[in-house]
Amino acid sequence: MFDVIIIGAGVAGFSAALFASRRGLKTLVIGKDVAGQANYTDTIENFPGIEEIGGFELVNQIRNQAEKFGAEYLQSEVTKLKTSPDAFVVTAYGKQYKSQGLILAYGKTPRDLGIPGEQALKGKGISYCATCDAPLFKGKVVAIAGIGDIAADAGLLCAKYAKKVYILSKTDKLLAHSELTKALFKKKNVELVPFIQIQEIMGETILSGIKLMHLKTGRQEELFLHGLFVELGYIVNSHFLQNIVKLDEQEQIVVDSDQTTSCAGIFAAGDATNRPYKQAVVSAGEGAAAALACYDWMMRKKGSVGLSSDWTQIKRIK
Amino acid sequence: MFDVIIIGAGVAGFSAALFASRRGLKTLVIGKDVAGQANYTDTIENFPGIEEIGGFELVNQIRNQAEKFGAEYLQSEVTKLKTSPDAFVVTAYGKQYKSQGLILAYGKTPRDLGIPGEQALKGKGISYCATCDAPLFKGKVVAIAGIGDIAADAGLLCAKYAKKVYILSKTDKLLAHSELTKALFKKKNVELVPFIQIQEIMGETILSGIKLMHLKTGRQEELFLHGLFVELGYIVNSHFLQNIVKLDEQEQIVVDSDQTTSCAGIFAAGDATNRPYKQAVVSAGEGAAAALACYDWMMRKKGSVGLSSDWTQIKRIK
Repeated sequence: MFDVIIIGAGVAGFSAALFASRRGLKTLVIGKDVAGQANYTDTIENFPGIEEIGGFELVNQIRNQAEKFGAEYLQSEVTKLKTSPDAFVVTAYGKQYKSQGLILAYGKTPRDLGIPGEQALKGKGISYCATCDAPLFKGKVVAIAGIGDIAADAGLLCAKYAKKVYILSKTDKLLAHSELTKALFKKKNVELVPFIQIQEIMGETILSGIKLMHLKTGRQEELFLHGLFVELGYIVNSHFLQNIVKLDEQEQIVVDSDQTTSCAGIFAAGDATNRPYKQAVVSAGEGAAAALACYDWMMRKKGSVGLSSDWTQIKRIK
Repeated sequence: MFDVIIIGAGVAGFSAALFASRRGLKTLVIGKDVAGQANYTDTIENFPGIEEIGGFELVNQIRNQAEKFGAEYLQSEVTKLKTSPDAFVVTAYGKQYKSQGLILAYGKTPRDLGIPGEQALKGKGISYCATCDAPLFKGKVVAIAGIGDIAADAGLLCAKYAKKVYILSKTDKLLAHSELTKALFKKKNVELVPFIQIQEIMGETILSGIKLMHLKTGRQEELFLHGLFVELGYIVNSHFLQNIVKLDEQEQIVVDSDQTTSCAGIFAAGDATNRPYKQAVVSAGEGAAAALACYDWMMRKKGSVGLSSDWTQIKRIK
């Protein structure tokens, strides 16, 4: 049982975790990947207080701050949310986690391949976060199912650790920045598998390989793998909310000025909310506010006084 | 003529300046002091992305980022705001500045002494920001009119530069942290002036000294000074707004979720708004959003398209 579960492991999620854990709340962050869309950004120059930082580096720094105060991170994907009188119940990769309060900070979610076998083997050889998991596949055989610069980046990173890295493509190349692909295919352990479609993911309790179809010949083939990295970009995925929280027509979570949602005990922050400007520092600020709002709500529920809102008196909380 | 004037030179103000100037807006920040209440905080541990930083240091870092993109800073105090059909007119230390858009980020304002001569000599020998101005008084005679740790800090800083630093007190000591006062009065150029009340500030176009009354004897005296540092803490001061913008009963500026106020073209961010949680990173996020909202408003006013609000399509702006 956690005090608060935060869904989403990007700038907003870990900022919320930092503020929640500093308030002494038992805090769990669940994310399908770390950093989310910040992974797209090599250099952030507009984060106030930091002259220049990489997107993933920024999120990792916030994660470290949050973990210093006791927050925990779980790499998983929330597929179900249930409310009960005394707790929220969150299902992620088939396991259940309970908490008093909930903060939705899921921004955009890495896209699935959408093929048979994928759901069952997520986190069991299939990863949506090369920057998180590449080091786990040292000396192993992996493949990248992806597009664009993020796929090339994932390939380059995996090439440092894995014995063999297959780059799966429907065409005869990987569509990405030419410098990246040049660097990628220079690596001796990287090999393009051209003109194929992935049809199925194989494995009982753990990934064992994939079934491919050659697009030119129609021939089917199996490729043995220890790991599969899916790098297909990000989508808006609020499906798991199941009407518990009010969304707008763009599937954004409707929040009040204090980050409350339409459901008591559920707060939201970052790109997933209906605030208009999707910027890292805006997400960080909303994450902090959502955590304090959640703390305030929990205190009041217990009959204690909440956080002071008399700004003519208060000084900043250190 | 500026594109945008930002009133307030703290975390919110300079974060707004960073985002406005990166959008190519001609940007002026006006503040009575730099950093505002962040000056109270020796160590901020809860700013996401930065493990540990001093309050003043954080604001200065954001200021540097904003200035790198062309934002200007003016140390002054806004006393009047006027709307006209084509521009906002801001009066600060008697001078007028015009802009298309306005961002209110004044948080709390350093408290005045409230004695004769003060209004006319602000910025002409009277300073409300020792961290900003102490170096300007190298080899000069200055006094600190203040209370608490911030007064002791100001004294210590001035002692590095000034020939002589008087600490003015109504009692026989300076009420502050004992370690600070011990360090302060160890300095050979620091002297306590006990049991006095400051009655008037003297000087024609520039500060020449102050008139004191001894509280035990009633005797009056003049003290020659080059500089006077007022360190009396911070108050809520929205007087200059003159009903142009809607405030709540706590004198907080009522903002919408996109930082707009009740007056078109005026946006607000940071502690001065009616958002409940007064935290540095919340201010930074609101500052960023206010600048983007202001830019969006200016673009639409000119007939261009504003910033995209279709979050299902957009990627983060680098």
